[in-house]
Amino acid sequence: MRAVTFQAPGEVLVQDVPEPELTHPQDAIVRVQASGICGSDLHIYHGRTPVEQGFTIGHEYVGTVEAVGSDVERVAVGDLVLGCFHSACGACVACVRGDYHRCRQGRTFGHGSKLGDLPGAQAEKLLVPRANLTLRRVPDGMSADVALFAGDVMGTGYHAIAHAGTRAGDTVAVLGLGPVGLCAVQAARAAGASQVFAIDTVAPRLELARSFGARALHLTEEDPKALVREATERLGVDVVVDAVGDPGPLGLAISLCRDAGTISGIGAYAGRGDVTLGLAWLKGLTIRLGLANVIAHVDRILAMMSAGILDPGPLVSEHMSLEQAPEAYALYDRREALKIVLSP
Amino acid sequence: MRAVTFQAPGEVLVQDVPEPELTHPQDAIVRVQASGICGSDLHIYHGRTPVEQGFTIGHEYVGTVEAVGSDVERVAVGDLVLGCFHSACGACVACVRGDYHRCRQGRTFGHGSKLGDLPGAQAEKLLVPRANLTLRRVPDGMSADVALFAGDVMGTGYHAIAHAGTRAGDTVAVLGLGPVGLCAVQAARAAGASQVFAIDTVAPRLELARSFGARALHLTEEDPKALVREATERLGVDVVVDAVGDPGPLGLAISLCRDAGTISGIGAYAGRGDVTLGLAWLKGLTIRLGLANVIAHVDRILAMMSAGILDPGPLVSEHMSLEQAPEAYALYDRREALKIVLSP
Amino acid sequence: MRAVTFQAPGEVLVQDVPEPELTHPQDAIVRVQASGICGSDLHIYHGRTPVEQGFTIGHEYVGTVEAVGSDVERVAVGDLVLGCFHSACGACVACVRGDYHRCRQGRTFGHGSKLGDLPGAQAEKLLVPRANLTLRRVPDGMSADVALFAGDVMGTGYHAIAHAGTRAGDTVAVLGLGPVGLCAVQAARAAGASQVFAIDTVAPRLELARSFGARALHLTEEDPKALVREATERLGVDVVVDAVGDPGPLGLAISLCRDAGTISGIGAYAGRGDVTLGLAWLKGLTIRLGLANVIAHVDRILAMMSAGILDPGPLVSEHMSLEQAPEAYALYDRREALKIVLSP
Amino acid sequence: MRAVTFQAPGEVLVQDVPEPELTHPQDAIVRVQASGICGSDLHIYHGRTPVEQGFTIGHEYVGTVEAVGSDVERVAVGDLVLGCFHSACGACVACVRGDYHRCRQGRTFGHGSKLGDLPGAQAEKLLVPRANLTLRRVPDGMSADVALFAGDVMGTGYHAIAHAGTRAGDTVAVLGLGPVGLCAVQAARAAGASQVFAIDTVAPRLELARSFGARALHLTEEDPKALVREATERLGVDVVVDAVGDPGPLGLAISLCRDAGTISGIGAYAGRGDVTLGLAWLKGLTIRLGLANVIAHVDRILAMMSAGILDPGPLVSEHMSLEQAPEAYALYDRREALKIVLSP
Repeated sequence: MRAVTFQAPGEVLVQDVPEPELTHPQDAIVRVQASGICGSDLHIYHGRTPVEQGFTIGHEYVGTVEAVGSDVERVAVGDLVLGCFHSACGACVACVRGDYHRCRQGRTFGHGSKLGDLPGAQAEKLLVPRANLTLRRVPDGMSADVALFAGDVMGTGYHAIAHAGTRAGDTVAVLGLGPVGLCAVQAARAAGASQVFAIDTVAPRLELARSFGARALHLTEEDPKALVREATERLGVDVVVDAVGDPGPLGLAISLCRDAGTISGIGAYAGRGDVTLGLAWLKGLTIRLGLANVIAHVDRILAMMSAGILDPGPLVSEHMSLEQAPEAYALYDRREALKIVLSP
Repeated sequence: MRAVTFQAPGEVLVQDVPEPELTHPQDAIVRVQASGICGSDLHIYHGRTPVEQGFTIGHEYVGTVEAVGSDVERVAVGDLVLGCFHSACGACVACVRGDYHRCRQGRTFGHGSKLGDLPGAQAEKLLVPRANLTLRRVPDGMSADVALFAGDVMGTGYHAIAHAGTRAGDTVAVLGLGPVGLCAVQAARAAGASQVFAIDTVAPRLELARSFGARALHLTEEDPKALVREATERLGVDVVVDAVGDPGPLGLAISLCRDAGTISGIGAYAGRGDVTLGLAWLKGLTIRLGLANVIAHVDRILAMMSAGILDPGPLVSEHMSLEQAPEAYALYDRREALKIVLSP
Repeated sequence: MRAVTFQAPGEVLVQDVPEPELTHPQDAIVRVQASGICGSDLHIYHGRTPVEQGFTIGHEYVGTVEAVGSDVERVAVGDLVLGCFHSACGACVACVRGDYHRCRQGRTFGHGSKLGDLPGAQAEKLLVPRANLTLRRVPDGMSADVALFAGDVMGTGYHAIAHAGTRAGDTVAVLGLGPVGLCAVQAARAAGASQVFAIDTVAPRLELARSFGARALHLTEEDPKALVREATERLGVDVVVDAVGDPGPLGLAISLCRDAGTISGIGAYAGRGDVTLGLAWLKGLTIRLGLANVIAHVDRILAMMSAGILDPGPLVSEHMSLEQAPEAYALYDRREALKIVLSP
Repeated sequence: MRAVTFQAPGEVLVQDVPEPELTHPQDAIVRVQASGICGSDLHIYHGRTPVEQGFTIGHEYVGTVEAVGSDVERVAVGDLVLGCFHSACGACVACVRGDYHRCRQGRTFGHGSKLGDLPGAQAEKLLVPRANLTLRRVPDGMSADVALFAGDVMGTGYHAIAHAGTRAGDTVAVLGLGPVGLCAVQAARAAGASQVFAIDTVAPRLELARSFGARALHLTEEDPKALVREATERLGVDVVVDAVGDPGPLGLAISLCRDAGTISGIGAYAGRGDVTLGLAWLKGLTIRLGLANVIAHVDRILAMMSAGILDPGPLVSEHMSLEQAPEAYALYDRREALKIVLSP
């Protein structure tokens, strides 16, 4: 079958790879209908996330179940499904606490041997382990473009808001308006945020955020700190989502947040960082870091997408064929696309 | 000054009463611009909530601050303000836990000597004790009709949803579509409920709920239990709001709620009740009862009203003068009005 | 192999039954070393919980793993293990929310076909489905007497306290000092309760509660309501555990609980109940009902037992052989034993 | 009256200052019986926390109420009381959220004009504003040595554990065994921590921690990271308390914490810090920073002290007279004392 593989920094290839096979009672095989290119794929593309040469990449997908092991109960052959970006065992100490994203045996699709050696979704077919926890049926009438956000990008935006304990009526700032940041804007509005400040430097992204109900603030042409302060009775916002990560605007997040507020650091950090800890301490902030617990959220997210409360559809900027993956990655790398959907 | 006083079951009077005076550094005097008639006023009107003859009633209001004691800091003379339906001391064991609605020294406006001997808001002027906690400035541009809901009816609807721990994406059923139930419908949608089932027998109320985004179900002409079950993959809803109370539909609430779900009993119960405890126990339900903690919520509610996320305006069915209070109560008692606003 | 089976109300039999066999990759076979007789076994014994004639009963156990399916990862052949009283799938909507006790496919050991058709633990061997979630290794040095409490009785006592949101420094009352109530007393003290009131009518149980650090109050010879009120500055307690259930002391629980406090109804209710809802509503109580979510708690409970913080050992009043089960049930039924441990 | 005043870095003076007077209805005057010297007094002593020359310092105290304003209701003249280290208004947006430690009008005793211009407790008498929220009666039979910890040091230790969401059965590490760290050790054990690792370099402090039920680990002579890892099945601990602060062991805290665990940064940070954000992000940690919300906890802490569950008594290493304050500060500065109590 055809699959997109990592070759070298800046180079992906569409090549023939062996078809996946069921090897475990909880496995499923999914025939991929659509897969997305994600910001974390770009880390691989840039060589920052090390992946073996020839490894199939991709972790956002919608497709049809082609085969299931004997223990797969939540989906059946023929179902149109979407998947979460990683698997989880459902029984280790982390899973029993509900921290599926920190599963002791979790495997991430398309991220090489270090993250579970699980070939990715930018391919014709996909092996899905622990299918009961990872797959969900696509609700009737939902497009693939929308559904494939549930298991990763919207899951992450929702997590950023929910994990921060956001309450209806709170004020929220979102730093960084890539797909995750824009989904966080939607999730914030959906959860009843009374004001959402969306901060970036890219005009079309600011415009999208505005269309989702946020007040868009240009990071450098305006003074976000002063404007947020003015709009919140000089308090700052209840919740700041840092959707940029490293080298990130944690300092800006700390300065925007109200006393005893929460920062949700959903953008990936790496290595060390120089942080204004003194200000964070004076303000009494809570800083919650890390990947999204998508498996814990995906049912609610699908329900909200079905109801039209969340709609990531407008984030899809390009549809391309799987064979066009090299051009797609180059386009995405030039930041000329927001979300590219590949179809085999 | 003129004020509406309770006289006897079924009888209120507009009469002259003494003007209130500042007696304490935390007091404020408010010149009332608009006051609402509430379901709990009807309990007084019916004689079920005992109130002394001649006692001024009413507890929903908007007005202008006319005078303040030396310790009043959050509002100033001349401010347009709204009030919560009760006062709280801010320092007792209940208040320090954040349970302002259970303040050991709390006083409820317009409910007679048993609930704090605090004359009510259906009058030209009102004495407001502990004004720092109880009063809030009306945000710019907000109508009195909207603002007077913040401190009672919308506060209660919001509480029903928030106190149940409702999360964005949850499903909610609201039993009873009086003003509180309709506000709970709005609060549920605002908090991201993916489906809201609104149940009553009165067609115009069902219609209003529908216009607020709920799926309206007629209690007797349809089969709410079967329909909710069908719409929730046979699970039942995450949260049920009982906005009726005694003699209430707690049994229906228990049957509509999913396993390990939550019932928010915001409608007033009295005396004893025969409850299907066995079913509630089998399902592992959480039942949260009692008055709303409005003081804890009012800032968020005002922010949401300002943003247009909550809009109780359509619930106001009649504007009448304070002098028309006897007709207003009679009209309300015949259930021919949803929310009557009185103006001195 | 030998097993205790239900025959008729008041009659159990030790008889030969077929040995269990592995049929599923997540199954394990446990050779039982010790099993307990529980209050819910008594419901079966009395015929109130309907179980088929000849069905093997029992659901508290410690034993050695004899065989495991290919997907069993958390325990291995030869391990000394304890089990939770029910199985859970780990992947349904309830499990993903962490509500393992409401698993859509959960099966309870030894409770007949209606609760999963899973033969019980009062036998020489036991089939354990979904072993990854249900079994845990017995920590080094822990006696079987202590360990078999982790998966049911102590799990339930801990749940009663944790599920109520008890905080260090809170006051707690426990109604009913059977094994579950006594474990709740221990769990309350372990969680930092500043005062624990233990209420029953049986002197030796009151004495045990006192030895666990509670203030023991005789239900009828003393006036628990007055004494609790006096000892809590007239507030009532933060948390009441009802470990009796139906026909239960929910009314007493409501009267003992402070305003905005929580009642944890861990004792089983059945059918309908006449409840002082009016008082519960006035107080603004939260009532949390249902079985314990033992799978969610068992790791923490074992850690506390290992540390000696929880020690249910003193609750074991009799050790008997499996063959003596008929005498054991009769003894337990006469309330002459607190916890009987059977050994094959 | 006599009072300890700051003069210059390294120099305090006992001098005559004017007696405080009631100026506000919520004020109280307390005749100080005992006051403590705290680590934050040392920041003043070192000149790192800027305080005006001649300003009276100290913020831990027990004493007798000598006079009260007309609005003081929770304490009366003649009561033996203890105080929290700061005042709070009880009505601003922060207080209504329960964040008394971030009160918009909060004033800290003995910290100069920048923190509220409120003279300190190392004096014969003390003016206490907002006395209803700040003062509590000393429970019968409690010594002043114990009581004066409730409003600051033990309040902070308790906060570190509670604010982290520690649950009974969790594992905890405490970094830094000054008085706050040692109180955190006690609070952790009291809240049911199954293992508490106490890390420092000072032998007597490690010994005290051991006597409070912790496993003491020497920071440099042992390998805390390896030992904690080994004792927690290679998971790390659920909660890490950083009781050192700046220049602090946040890096060690991050490495000791389990995936999705919580760090409670209760030691004061200042300025910027170089943090291993990448590891914290990979682990999915929550980092909660800032001062303790003592007013929210003080009632529970007093209840636990009364019950003997918390006992900071052993931390008092010296009793000295107020006149000996210069020697006391010098002694404390040389780290030769753990907690010095001054008596006028």
